[in-house]
Amino acid sequence: MKGVVKHIVLAKFKEGVTKAEIEKLIKDYADLRNHIKQVKSFEWGTDVSIENLNQGFTHVFETTFATLEDRSAYVAHPAHVKFGAQLFPTLEKIIGIDFVPAPEP
Amino acid sequence: MKGVVKHIVLAKFKEGVTKAEIEKLIKDYADLRNHIKQVKSFEWGTDVSIENLNQGFTHVFETTFATLEDRSAYVAHPAHVKFGAQLFPTLEKIIGIDFVPAPEP
Repeated sequence: MKGVVKHIVLAKFKEGVTKAEIEKLIKDYADLRNHIKQVKSFEWGTDVSIENLNQGFTHVFETTFATLEDRSAYVAHPAHVKFGAQLFPTLEKIIGIDFVPAPEP
Repeated sequence: MKGVVKHIVLAKFKEGVTKAEIEKLIKDYADLRNHIKQVKSFEWGTDVSIENLNQGFTHVFETTFATLEDRSAYVAHPAHVKFGAQLFPTLEKIIGIDFVPAPEP
């Protein structure tokens, strides 16, 4: 996984956001790949944890990039900015955190 | 990535926890691999995000498992329980969330 940057987003949607709206948002999120060439991979899923530590978050999105520069290009890309403006009003809370898998500790 | 379960932990350490203490905890976290055979991979890193959405979290840990049953065995394993008891008092906050990468939306 040398050189990979992992961009993780946790989301909790507002009450009243419908299942259909969430599905559309996930489709649009995944579709960013087709507009932003720096996206290396995109995965998502809903929480299946059993430790009672999800703090109410229900969805995870993980996008990877080859370099920090590619990650920055993605963040600034008009398609990403536009998607963010669409996603944000539907969220009760969000965390976005990026990391470069470190060498063995 | 078929069949993989991703177990993501975000952490923020308490003020006063030293760099050496954090390094030791990360070593012990990584070492769980050597005690719990269900661990498929372990990666960690510190936050390098640029979107101002990290909500104060500074560390990411990502452990993968082949199945939900393997994940559950890990959670219940005495080595994991012992490590948790060591880690928890050092944390200001934590999120633990698991997901199975879903089929294309």
